[in-house]
Amino acid sequence: MQKHQPLQDKIQQILPMAAFNRWLDLQLVSAAPGEVTLHVPWRDEFGQYSGFLHAGILGALIDTACGFAAITQTDRVLASQYTVRCLRPAVAETFVVRGWVVKPGRQQVFSAAEIYALGDESRKLFAVGDAMCQPEKPRQLHATRGFSVVVLSVRTPAPLGAARSR
Amino acid sequence: MQKHQPLQDKIQQILPMAAFNRWLDLQLVSAAPGEVTLHVPWRDEFGQYSGFLHAGILGALIDTACGFAAITQTDRVLASQYTVRCLRPAVAETFVVRGWVVKPGRQQVFSAAEIYALGDESRKLFAVGDAMCQPEKPRQLHATRGFSVVVLSVRTPAPLGAARSR
Amino acid sequence: MQKHQPLQDKIQQILPMAAFNRWLDLQLVSAAPGEVTLHVPWRDEFGQYSGFLHAGILGALIDTACGFAAITQTDRVLASQYTVRCLRPAVAETFVVRGWVVKPGRQQVFSAAEIYALGDESRKLFAVGDAMCQPEKPRQLHATRGFSVVVLSVRTPAPLGAARSR
Amino acid sequence: MQKHQPLQDKIQQILPMAAFNRWLDLQLVSAAPGEVTLHVPWRDEFGQYSGFLHAGILGALIDTACGFAAITQTDRVLASQYTVRCLRPAVAETFVVRGWVVKPGRQQVFSAAEIYALGDESRKLFAVGDAMCQPEKPRQLHATRGFSVVVLSVRTPAPLGAARSR
Repeated sequence: MQKHQPLQDKIQQILPMAAFNRWLDLQLVSAAPGEVTLHVPWRDEFGQYSGFLHAGILGALIDTACGFAAITQTDRVLASQYTVRCLRPAVAETFVVRGWVVKPGRQQVFSAAEIYALGDESRKLFAVGDAMCQPEKPRQLHATRGFSVVVLSVRTPAPLGAARSR
Repeated sequence: MQKHQPLQDKIQQILPMAAFNRWLDLQLVSAAPGEVTLHVPWRDEFGQYSGFLHAGILGALIDTACGFAAITQTDRVLASQYTVRCLRPAVAETFVVRGWVVKPGRQQVFSAAEIYALGDESRKLFAVGDAMCQPEKPRQLHATRGFSVVVLSVRTPAPLGAARSR
Repeated sequence: MQKHQPLQDKIQQILPMAAFNRWLDLQLVSAAPGEVTLHVPWRDEFGQYSGFLHAGILGALIDTACGFAAITQTDRVLASQYTVRCLRPAVAETFVVRGWVVKPGRQQVFSAAEIYALGDESRKLFAVGDAMCQPEKPRQLHATRGFSVVVLSVRTPAPLGAARSR
Repeated sequence: MQKHQPLQDKIQQILPMAAFNRWLDLQLVSAAPGEVTLHVPWRDEFGQYSGFLHAGILGALIDTACGFAAITQTDRVLASQYTVRCLRPAVAETFVVRGWVVKPGRQQVFSAAEIYALGDESRKLFAVGDAMCQPEKPRQLHATRGFSVVVLSVRTPAPLGAARSR
């Protein structure tokens, strides 16, 4: 995948605006039209009962990679729906999450994503999934912009307060 | 929903074995055959771009509630697949997650779940979803048991190390 | 469910416009805001390997009931995505398909549906599912009409010809 | 895709046992380990409101191709769940349906499928989807075997009667 600096910059700017993305420590590796790759280092809090990566984290990664892939071809989007298929127990020091657009569109974008271990040449998939994203509505964009100011200024978003005051 | 103490005890014992469940601060409110209810207080790290609950957290809650509902009617399970439908921006001081079994079975359990705000009498749904769970295979149960000893003894799981040593 | 004549008339008019709906012999039983019920008599061509209702028919019924439920609250829609969960082997002389809106919206409508046997008081579910529908775009309606002219002139499958002549 | 005669024979034998498959006029083009390709000629009864291929037919094709792909690597299966993503209006004289296994397994098989027009070099996708299949349970296999005798001998399955007599 050819690197595409403006797209990387665009996503790199959006990525840390979500507090949960920061907590996940998502690292954008590359972005090109219709495709993104992220790295996510293991973190002890990610574990499920047997110490594997929690299906909830798998889903968060798929949702995010699908959304970022969509963003390479449109404005900001929100996932309306996403599905996670847990193929095998997920263990790695660092996970690779690759998302790509299946079908772009102005009203809805279909994306898909897959997760495997960094350094695994065979790319044995831990999980695959897909999402349908839609452009954020103006009202929400507005709220977002107002909110992003808060984020930038106070550095710890207090999202609930911000949301409540609307 | 009638309280059912043995089921609550069973789930209460399993819930904190997953590190991510502890981080989510999932609170089991009730469990009955085929149904569970959890409370989840807002946490700043849960936020997405606009400060609403991140779709990844919505998915983790749906996955977990579906799994717990399945556990009320069978042995320990793992989600093979789950889907999250994000109906509206999710904001609350505490979220209620209700999971229930749609169709039990020995080889697979179909569950569904919904998320709304604690105290919202109208139960306006932030998200709905469903999961298909399967019984953990003996090999995995074994690993789990070995692992749970580790968890109990060292108190901070280090799941990757445990997984690696297998 | 209270009968709602204008909605029944609206759907009754749209239903037979799809050739596959006619083949399925879908019978609209009732329609109310956000909800529809259909009856579908068994037909030999519906069978899968063991003689049960084919999963493809289950899906067609869920897709259609979800779409009709959406239509009770908006203009004509198309399903962007639908999912079918096959709970148990489906056998009946007549199937009941109930669809309802989970979350209406101008840009997308979330619906769900269930299928059981007519006369089964326990409503043992053969399948459940859900769909996300979107309003048909004017462009598509237009394209369709344009296309049907082409079809009619070259006398290939004429899929649109049937539609146009109605 | 290399042809694989024993697998083609295996699927070719199973395919027509489902009455709905016969009605769909599914034509097996090739089968190899983990992959199948089918052709489906347009039929007037396949149309939706605008004369495009009905989403219910898209789903039936995806369900079937996913199941056949699974069958190349295991015994007979039934779809527990499948999802259809309708990417664009589907029109063709003949449709190509390709199914492949994403993750095999003894207890569950994850497959995916795609649909495009025969002769379209660009393979513009009308729909994509996925299914989770499970091995048929012995009880059902039995019923199937008994039933298949009926099919072979009387040629018109009367599946309902057969099912009722069990």
